Amino acid sequence: MRLYVQYGRSCTTDRLPAFGAATTDSFTSSAASAEAGRTRATIKAATSLMSGWDSRVELVEPISFARGIPAPECLAVEELADCARAAIERDGATVLNYGSSGGYAPLREWIAERHQADPSQVVVTNGSLQGFRFLAELLAPRGPVLVEAPTYDRPLKILAALGAEVIPVPLDDDGMVDSPAFFYTIPTFQNPTGRTLSADARERLAALARAGMLVFEDDPYGLVRFEGEAPPTVFELAGGENVAYSSSFSKTIAPGLRVGYLVLPEGLAAEVESAAAAAYITPALLSQATVYEFLRRGNLEPNLERVCALLRERRDAMVAALDQHLPEAVWTVPEGGYFLWLELPRGIETADLRAEGVTFVPGADFFAGAGGENALRLAFSYASPTEIEEGVRRLASAVRAALLLRSAA
Amino acid sequence: MRLYVQYGRSCTTDRLPAFGAATTDSFTSSAASAEAGRTRATIKAATSLMSGWDSRVELVEPISFARGIPAPECLAVEELADCARAAIERDGATVLNYGSSGGYAPLREWIAERHQADPSQVVVTNGSLQGFRFLAELLAPRGPVLVEAPTYDRPLKILAALGAEVIPVPLDDDGMVDSPAFFYTIPTFQNPTGRTLSADARERLAALARAGMLVFEDDPYGLVRFEGEAPPTVFELAGGENVAYSSSFSKTIAPGLRVGYLVLPEGLAAEVESAAAAAYITPALLSQATVYEFLRRGNLEPNLERVCALLRERRDAMVAALDQHLPEAVWTVPEGGYFLWLELPRGIETADLRAEGVTFVPGADFFAGAGGENALRLAFSYASPTEIEEGVRRLASAVRAALLLRSAA
Repeated sequence: MRLYVQYGRSCTTDRLPAFGAATTDSFTSSAASAEAGRTRATIKAATSLMSGWDSRVELVEPISFARGIPAPECLAVEELADCARAAIERDGATVLNYGSSGGYAPLREWIAERHQADPSQVVVTNGSLQGFRFLAELLAPRGPVLVEAPTYDRPLKILAALGAEVIPVPLDDDGMVDSPAFFYTIPTFQNPTGRTLSADARERLAALARAGMLVFEDDPYGLVRFEGEAPPTVFELAGGENVAYSSSFSKTIAPGLRVGYLVLPEGLAAEVESAAAAAYITPALLSQATVYEFLRRGNLEPNLERVCALLRERRDAMVAALDQHLPEAVWTVPEGGYFLWLELPRGIETADLRAEGVTFVPGADFFAGAGGENALRLAFSYASPTEIEEGVRRLASAVRAALLLRSAA
Repeated sequence: MRLYVQYGRSCTTDRLPAFGAATTDSFTSSAASAEAGRTRATIKAATSLMSGWDSRVELVEPISFARGIPAPECLAVEELADCARAAIERDGATVLNYGSSGGYAPLREWIAERHQADPSQVVVTNGSLQGFRFLAELLAPRGPVLVEAPTYDRPLKILAALGAEVIPVPLDDDGMVDSPAFFYTIPTFQNPTGRTLSADARERLAALARAGMLVFEDDPYGLVRFEGEAPPTVFELAGGENVAYSSSFSKTIAPGLRVGYLVLPEGLAAEVESAAAAAYITPALLSQATVYEFLRRGNLEPNLERVCALLRERRDAMVAALDQHLPEAVWTVPEGGYFLWLELPRGIETADLRAEGVTFVPGADFFAGAGGENALRLAFSYASPTEIEEGVRRLASAVRAALLLRSAA
């Protein structure tokens, strides 16, 4: 099977910068450690502060633009506490024992109905990354894996660990590829860029799926939309044919529950369910039953409204601060999700920055090969609007310092 | 490194039969499907019943000796419902968000204290099988893996899928082996045999650990003891040196929570934590916090007493029924755990049985190579004492029928 891949030419985010092509398939990534709390730059900053001669020096609490995690206010603590209690009280004998490897049955049914699929096509996993991993382990041995360039760094790490052949497809590029195992795409509010694929690009992906290429559509952010109309998913456009649709309740309810899911073509669903059984027997049912209780109480829509309002405020704060403090840079303005993508002024690379008191993930971490050296991913999901303003100010200082150093050199 | 392996000569269960040596490293297993509810034999039985001419035929609900899962009465439903609620209310901002890949910090500390280790040595996973998997993925490429023969079938499947070189060590045998990656053992109330290694055998394993062989001590059943004194763990005997200790709250609290853990040598713990991050970012924190709440309320000991009493009653029912209905067979009488191991009368193999209305896992599933053809694993954990009596009666009928067929042939 030889396919002509052309999908990303037009995007709904018109401020999206063009990315250079990435050509190799090996990479390293520090995104994980950065998300754990601090970038290398900040550890350095903190160390230099702590080892300073002046004992009166104030230790600046770093502001995190690295963590792609929700602000604590996004989490419906009281309601989830009651849902967890109710889920066990209602269905404890099932929830507390071993059960189906494919997940808690009532939740599978809820997801199936939402996506007009059969419950047997749904596999609910301990977070959606685990689902990607199962599918990658099954399919990567069968052919090369196409990924967007840039793309979410954790799948790149999984593919590298599997020894998969990874072919990065620049977001604005076309290409030919022989018998790919699958194409990994995050069409809406992409991690890391925040860009959303246009309806045209989605149609092209759906056409590729119908032509026989499996599309892995990762859609954790789709419902976290602040404004504008949601385009159809590739799964919907292709009528579910040859699309592995993946989503999660991490962004819509709470990530600590670790409830993600796949909606798969029938045969593949059975294979993934077997892989799940071999990995952990049964997923964490208490979490899944808690999510189901939250859904059946009709909490999802009002919670989304609340969460989107909180995140919109944060995105607006970040865009306003960038406008004010970093007009030399270029950034995306996503209509939803957690991230925006910042390209530094010409001549400066991310590695040149000595940012103090602010963390981010370097753009290069999101490329399977070269690329992103002058970019960074900024998460606006976690910090408060006030912190965001201050964090961007600190980032701008670091950029200004790098520009000065550069002109002095 | 070349090690002399001798560990299983004497067992505390003196009715343990001798097992033949297993010599190959490939295998297939139906234990997973059997644990899901029915063995092939029973599906066949049910089908033959359902397709019978006599429409008045009664569909017999099969009695499961296959499912290594707790009886519903073992699960402290109301208390766990309240613990889940309290865990979220007390620490929701942590429990509901992304967190450490190594698990919920207070639970890690609790486990570390219990095992006199540092919290950084503890990795809490979504069930203990996931922990085995992480370790096997890391270590199996480094050398052959020694396993008991027979042993728990799921680790065998994981090792087979990894392409690991597996060397089965018969329970009563010695052997030489070059540079093993690790030795996988379940010293107490073993799955599938129910046997417990003697203090001597444990000392030999600890000596091997001190000599440089990593021992993977899987101990999910250790606290589920009905009588007798608990021998020290290999981890304790070796002072933690070169022992990867694994346990779980599946048998002591509830399996649907999926909370297992590893206590590891420092360097290995960091590697496993990285593997966990790459697999699922963060384990299911709600479950872990619920377990922690259960523990901090002092519920563990009283719950264990209650669970052990329920299980002791079931073991006693099974042993009594075997005495009454199957005196021709040989079985282990474990002092705890979920399982006993039954060897059929001379000349009969498990494959000869046409058991109706009772399920079990064939002994051969627990061998990496040949072995166990005349044995079966019987779980007494799930069925009620009355069901156990009836199930053994059904099993005995099948054995009697096989004996008749055999003598007629």
